[in-house]
Amino acid sequence: MKNNENNNGNRLEEANKPYEISEKLHRFYKGKIQVVPKAPVRSLDDFSYWYTPGVARPCRLIEADRQKVFDYTNKGNSIAVVSDGTRVLGLGNIGPEAALPVMEGKSLIFKYLGGVDAVPMCLQENDLQKLVALVKAMAPNFGGINLEDIESPKCYDLLDILREELDIPVWHDDRQGTATIILAGVINSFKLVGRDLTEAKYVLQGAGASNLAVAELLMLLDVPPGNIVLVDSKGILHDQRKVASNNKLKAKWARISNKWKLKGQLEAAVEDADILIALSTPGPGIVPPELVQKMKKDSIVFACANPVPEIWPWEARDNGAAITATGRSDFANQLNNSLVFPGVFRGALDVQATTITDEMCVVAARAIAQRAQEIGLSSDFIVPTMEDEKVMTEVAVAVGRKAVEFGLARRELKVEELKASADRIISSAQKNVKLMMESKIIPPVPED
Amino acid sequence: MKNNENNNGNRLEEANKPYEISEKLHRFYKGKIQVVPKAPVRSLDDFSYWYTPGVARPCRLIEADRQKVFDYTNKGNSIAVVSDGTRVLGLGNIGPEAALPVMEGKSLIFKYLGGVDAVPMCLQENDLQKLVALVKAMAPNFGGINLEDIESPKCYDLLDILREELDIPVWHDDRQGTATIILAGVINSFKLVGRDLTEAKYVLQGAGASNLAVAELLMLLDVPPGNIVLVDSKGILHDQRKVASNNKLKAKWARISNKWKLKGQLEAAVEDADILIALSTPGPGIVPPELVQKMKKDSIVFACANPVPEIWPWEARDNGAAITATGRSDFANQLNNSLVFPGVFRGALDVQATTITDEMCVVAARAIAQRAQEIGLSSDFIVPTMEDEKVMTEVAVAVGRKAVEFGLARRELKVEELKASADRIISSAQKNVKLMMESKIIPPVPED
Repeated sequence: MKNNENNNGNRLEEANKPYEISEKLHRFYKGKIQVVPKAPVRSLDDFSYWYTPGVARPCRLIEADRQKVFDYTNKGNSIAVVSDGTRVLGLGNIGPEAALPVMEGKSLIFKYLGGVDAVPMCLQENDLQKLVALVKAMAPNFGGINLEDIESPKCYDLLDILREELDIPVWHDDRQGTATIILAGVINSFKLVGRDLTEAKYVLQGAGASNLAVAELLMLLDVPPGNIVLVDSKGILHDQRKVASNNKLKAKWARISNKWKLKGQLEAAVEDADILIALSTPGPGIVPPELVQKMKKDSIVFACANPVPEIWPWEARDNGAAITATGRSDFANQLNNSLVFPGVFRGALDVQATTITDEMCVVAARAIAQRAQEIGLSSDFIVPTMEDEKVMTEVAVAVGRKAVEFGLARRELKVEELKASADRIISSAQKNVKLMMESKIIPPVPED
Repeated sequence: MKNNENNNGNRLEEANKPYEISEKLHRFYKGKIQVVPKAPVRSLDDFSYWYTPGVARPCRLIEADRQKVFDYTNKGNSIAVVSDGTRVLGLGNIGPEAALPVMEGKSLIFKYLGGVDAVPMCLQENDLQKLVALVKAMAPNFGGINLEDIESPKCYDLLDILREELDIPVWHDDRQGTATIILAGVINSFKLVGRDLTEAKYVLQGAGASNLAVAELLMLLDVPPGNIVLVDSKGILHDQRKVASNNKLKAKWARISNKWKLKGQLEAAVEDADILIALSTPGPGIVPPELVQKMKKDSIVFACANPVPEIWPWEARDNGAAITATGRSDFANQLNNSLVFPGVFRGALDVQATTITDEMCVVAARAIAQRAQEIGLSSDFIVPTMEDEKVMTEVAVAVGRKAVEFGLARRELKVEELKASADRIISSAQKNVKLMMESKIIPPVPED
């Protein structure tokens, strides 16, 4: 243990650096995103087309046919990144102002990796029904909504209601984005260990928004729900466990999971498990290393809490895990939402999808898994890194095509069209950043 | 009259061109604004500063002191352009989707002329109290709110309530922006004709949001309210005229205006008037040319309806007007809000103002008038054109300084600091558009 602690100490010191640099950079740049023209201004005369009087024509055409808003405005490439600031990163309920740096960061990543125009929308409002009303009222401006860092169980109902009532995709990234990248990791891990994922025993530590979504998506891979054992802070979920009455999703999983009717704590759950997926509390020491010994030989351990995983990957491997993954970029197998949301929205926006279904999450996960296989699967490479230039486009194509197949798209693009569109938009976004840096419109990072 | 009709016919044909070109350009570019990084991405490693884990530090700092959101995010340069689509341009209640091309156009102008990041926010909501709640809920993201194209009298209450309840500037451009540029024109017109504006007789045709604001600002120039005669579609306002009970502002002006207790229509109002300010219904023929003969010698006629003024400027001059102005760029003396709002918000944002008062509108108007004087006043040049590179900065400096003087600024910038900041931000915005056009990130206008 002493060794591990030292190890942790050094690594944590290293892990503190980004915080200081981040503070300085944020102070220097005063935020991370801006609004700029996407149309030319050859001279001020162009304002007579972009604004009054000429703009009256597109206005009239949209008034006559509301769907034409996709033709004449940026709605089709715009999304809102909506949060009420009640559950921001691992920081808790810090409020909308304090959540803004996160949502701006998300917007930056949306543009850089997905070519998506994402507007941060941190709302001074905690009430579910009022949040519903707010998002519905602003929907005319957007081709999609990304919900982010909203406390559960409110986030479940918010997503369900908005999905029902809006004709644009609504996505809860903490739930669907996380579950999708986990699913990609699951697919490739089972491929590597050579076992059938539909026959495996799954232990999910943490029964919050993201792990409940993992469970839902696993069902779509034909994993029987009874094969999944969920463990929350009070212990294993089973059909006699009391669950807060407003948390319908969790209550459902208490009923349908855990065919063995296991009770007790994590220790009782992991016996003979193929895979442990921890999406719970920052470690270290949340998953005692010796528990991994109780799992099946060549087990799979995903420990995704940030900044410190529930169990260090070397601890898991030392105790029998064949494959480990975390949320961190400094270990192999980073399971990071950023591999998912830019491509998912790129594809959904390009076909003007009306929704993003769980099936679209599954094809996104398969596309990510497939891409890692193309590059070369190994126990240290179960998903691509963000540097991979192809993965975003592959996800966009898979999601876009699925929407078309399901009749959930306003534009019926073919695979080649989707691919060309995603490649063009994403590379243009990255080229633009490069140009702005070279010309010092984005000033260089100050030295000190 | 025949001659005038022909004249109008040709000019109207000419005036139709922008509509067709506008439709094509909007369809090609699919909107006018986008969201792009304002911070560098040297490699994907920078995401660890801009996003998790590093971003947690600025979040924590803002959580501890909410005002720090101005230091670590783009809030201080962002505004929302809010409309419910109930009174868009001269098009009426066309709804939020159809209003979006206008709000995107406004955003483009905000950035190009003022360096302001303006997010279009067309809301599917007509109820006053719900609009209040919506804008309040989204306020954490923004350093200011620009209300636009909202029907009266709702727009008065909305502005009043939001000004009261928010700690960021709230501005209703149709009202304050228009009134400010009119005021600049009034100041220089009276200077040119050599009469004292505090002793003049004003006739305001149209008693909507903008002309009521003109009346309010005239009072701040020491014009006695009794010297102002307002005429709406039913005739002259006077203290026995019935006014809709929910329109408090108009009711007030029925009481305090028109010291002569004039009654009847426009014809009865203009007798011996120094100036006619028409902000009413698109012409031609709304103001019969012969009425100008009844005004004082060397009268002043502002006819600002778009696209066609209430009276053509040559008609007014032929009948005795010394100075005419319209809202159109193809005549001399265009009274255009675009000379006002970019500079007003630039100044207000740079000092992190908590509000924009009517007094700040007056100093903005004086700065615009002053700038025209520097260039060289004439009856065909009472305000600068948008091409003038200095006017936006002059307005920003005047507004910023007034906010500081009044103790309404979070940052106490000096004149030189305000000037340097505005110049830098605005020129960078324009340089960026040029660069994006040269590099074809903004593709060239297609030929056809």
